[in-house]
Amino acid sequence: MHRTDLAALDRAHIIHPYLPSSATERVIMVEGEGSRLRDSHGREYLDATGGLWLAQVGHGRAELADVARDQMARLEYFTSFWEFSNDRAVELAERLVSISPEPLDHVYYTSGGSEGNEAAIKMARYYHHRRGESSRTWILGRHRAYHGIAYGGGSVTGFDLYHDGFGPMMPHVAHLTPPWPYRAELFDGRDCTDFCIAELEETIDRIGAQNIAAMIGEPIMGVAGMVVPPDDYWPRVAEVLRRNGILLVLDEVVTAYGRVGTWFAADHFGVRPDIVVTAKGITSGYLPLGAVLVADHVATELGRDHGFPMGYTYNGHPTACAVALANLDIIDREGLVERAPKIGDFLAAELRRALADVPLVGEVRNVGMMLGVELVADPTTREPLPGIQHIADTIRAEHGVIVRDAATALVLSPALTLGEAEATRIAESIAEVLSRTTPDGTVHRGAAR
Amino acid sequence: MHRTDLAALDRAHIIHPYLPSSATERVIMVEGEGSRLRDSHGREYLDATGGLWLAQVGHGRAELADVARDQMARLEYFTSFWEFSNDRAVELAERLVSISPEPLDHVYYTSGGSEGNEAAIKMARYYHHRRGESSRTWILGRHRAYHGIAYGGGSVTGFDLYHDGFGPMMPHVAHLTPPWPYRAELFDGRDCTDFCIAELEETIDRIGAQNIAAMIGEPIMGVAGMVVPPDDYWPRVAEVLRRNGILLVLDEVVTAYGRVGTWFAADHFGVRPDIVVTAKGITSGYLPLGAVLVADHVATELGRDHGFPMGYTYNGHPTACAVALANLDIIDREGLVERAPKIGDFLAAELRRALADVPLVGEVRNVGMMLGVELVADPTTREPLPGIQHIADTIRAEHGVIVRDAATALVLSPALTLGEAEATRIAESIAEVLSRTTPDGTVHRGAAR
Repeated sequence: MHRTDLAALDRAHIIHPYLPSSATERVIMVEGEGSRLRDSHGREYLDATGGLWLAQVGHGRAELADVARDQMARLEYFTSFWEFSNDRAVELAERLVSISPEPLDHVYYTSGGSEGNEAAIKMARYYHHRRGESSRTWILGRHRAYHGIAYGGGSVTGFDLYHDGFGPMMPHVAHLTPPWPYRAELFDGRDCTDFCIAELEETIDRIGAQNIAAMIGEPIMGVAGMVVPPDDYWPRVAEVLRRNGILLVLDEVVTAYGRVGTWFAADHFGVRPDIVVTAKGITSGYLPLGAVLVADHVATELGRDHGFPMGYTYNGHPTACAVALANLDIIDREGLVERAPKIGDFLAAELRRALADVPLVGEVRNVGMMLGVELVADPTTREPLPGIQHIADTIRAEHGVIVRDAATALVLSPALTLGEAEATRIAESIAEVLSRTTPDGTVHRGAAR
Repeated sequence: MHRTDLAALDRAHIIHPYLPSSATERVIMVEGEGSRLRDSHGREYLDATGGLWLAQVGHGRAELADVARDQMARLEYFTSFWEFSNDRAVELAERLVSISPEPLDHVYYTSGGSEGNEAAIKMARYYHHRRGESSRTWILGRHRAYHGIAYGGGSVTGFDLYHDGFGPMMPHVAHLTPPWPYRAELFDGRDCTDFCIAELEETIDRIGAQNIAAMIGEPIMGVAGMVVPPDDYWPRVAEVLRRNGILLVLDEVVTAYGRVGTWFAADHFGVRPDIVVTAKGITSGYLPLGAVLVADHVATELGRDHGFPMGYTYNGHPTACAVALANLDIIDREGLVERAPKIGDFLAAELRRALADVPLVGEVRNVGMMLGVELVADPTTREPLPGIQHIADTIRAEHGVIVRDAATALVLSPALTLGEAEATRIAESIAEVLSRTTPDGTVHRGAAR
């Protein structure tokens, strides 16, 4: 099909997320290899977002394509409801349990993170319901959190954009302050963790522990701009929750499978969650798949009576599970979990070097291959820089480097296979555009200063 | 891996939907071709459920496996958020629009039916919100409806099992009486459609049309037991909704892509929906994919301002879209849309023949390849037969024929490629087990009569 036909057909027929119909440009990707992409005009791009924060092993792996074909020809799909199962789903479950944090010995399959967060909320409420504590229905989340866009997780998501015009949302959700050290103004002059723990305890007192099922949180907050909490935040949160009989659900849709330098961010922060929601990196995006990892004490309750009455059609999809196994093999064989902090820290250092003289940069933060460049109109007031989306678009259009804006930051989450030369190019492309950006968010044609 | 290891590992690590931990049997599928499946013990099965009501082209098509491999090696995935797209997503959108009922000219991609129903609810509410009618938030559904298990669609789902212990659910949902002619007791002695239309109008009066966003319904109710409404039900419902400014959303997750003898059940019933949710048959289950089809007037509102702020990671997944295109090619090339009513009616006739002397059968109903065998303890009182799940399990265990129980019926939805000899075997297997079942639901070893 001719490339201009493609763009015209796209405009005529596809509803893209987050794209107004006034935006007529289309970038139609047709090929990918490693961190390189090519569009329908033959233009090449460097993918610094790793697809959508998920391409751990990079694009275009023939090995995964062959595994998909072989499994699909043998048994593409059968249901995993009731007593039905398949060999690939079993093998993957064993593998996931072997790398997951204690005490997560059980796997519930989904096709993605939004599905996983729905399941986690239902599991948490059902757990208490079956234990005779049916009043425990409240879910604690955080402002600026992102837990997908189905109605359950989407209600815990902490941005007005995801609620306005869509309500009424699921009731019994409370949003806490995000643990965001850079935004010291959020904490009334107190230590970030001290403030968050006090607020958590006050919230539990207010709602009543006997009414709260779980707290759900991204270990590192992605859509908020790769917000990294203080080291003591998660251990102290976990202690408060445990003391109050509230389950800890970690949304590791972005952080799991090596991105932060450990298989799971729970390991990085040293906490023992009751439920962990994963997706994305489990297949590096080659096929839609998610896995909710569940602790013994929760799984035991879910197995009572008629079991857990919730199942997605593609639960335990054999082809997706086969590709996940092969993807985890690649991560293992190429040492990508260990590589993530090395190349991530290198990229962070390159960003700090290239951006050293750019006053619009509030901070560069990273844990492994999750990086955020906080942009501010004024580093003293920490006033966010307007027009970040246009800056990301300009970096893509003028440098062929794909980065993403998320809240008040540019965020990066490249493949864990990213090379050093590629990292340097990413840093310098960002710096070049920011060097001619003024505090009103305008990107000038020549140097801004 | 050894077959007994597989079962033990499954029990230890996998949380299956709807399976209590007291159930220790596992049927671990390892191969499939056409309507035949083979498990890890080498036992063969005849798949009369079509996976989970989705295997339009049957299992093990090497052609689809090759397409998946080729696309995955070229571009397995990139995001379709914002201005990004890919050639396969565009080609599939054009194809879907070409077969979809008027006026559905726009496509929003998901990875399955649950995701699609969340999107449809948000689209309906957003449509009214952007038109300045933000009070239109109520969603009308039906008792015994199934719209997936995320919190939005799951709230519209009309079974207590999907709400008890999971609440509070999404507010502003009202459930109407299902159009189920066999259950005449539901309609106070009135005509089924007359009753349902009067109830719909009374419900709109009670809630207020200005507070109602949409009505969502499966054209034929699947989990309810393949409940087929009277021919005049959907046209008359659509007329009432249109008159009241309420959108009509058809959940065609099961019915679309040829199963009922037309590409969409909307065509079968002669209605023009505003939004149609599809999944399953779009790829015959080879990969997780869904598509929400959207009418012009709705898409126009979604495109305003910042666009539609909702996107699933795998939106427009290139590999899933490539497989869907090849799957639609097979349906076309092999004439499966036309085949569905022929083989479906043959299977229904075989069931009626084989079950003619079984008093436990209330009725055999079908539209194309969606079939329900209503089971009753007493055909006069229409009291449902207890223990239907055990009957389905027995048919599978003793005859190697996989059927499913859904509410008060055994339901069948085989591949559209099912052969006549296979159809006869399905009918005779069901009849053999029912012939030795007594009205208390017990399946006896010898003949019951």
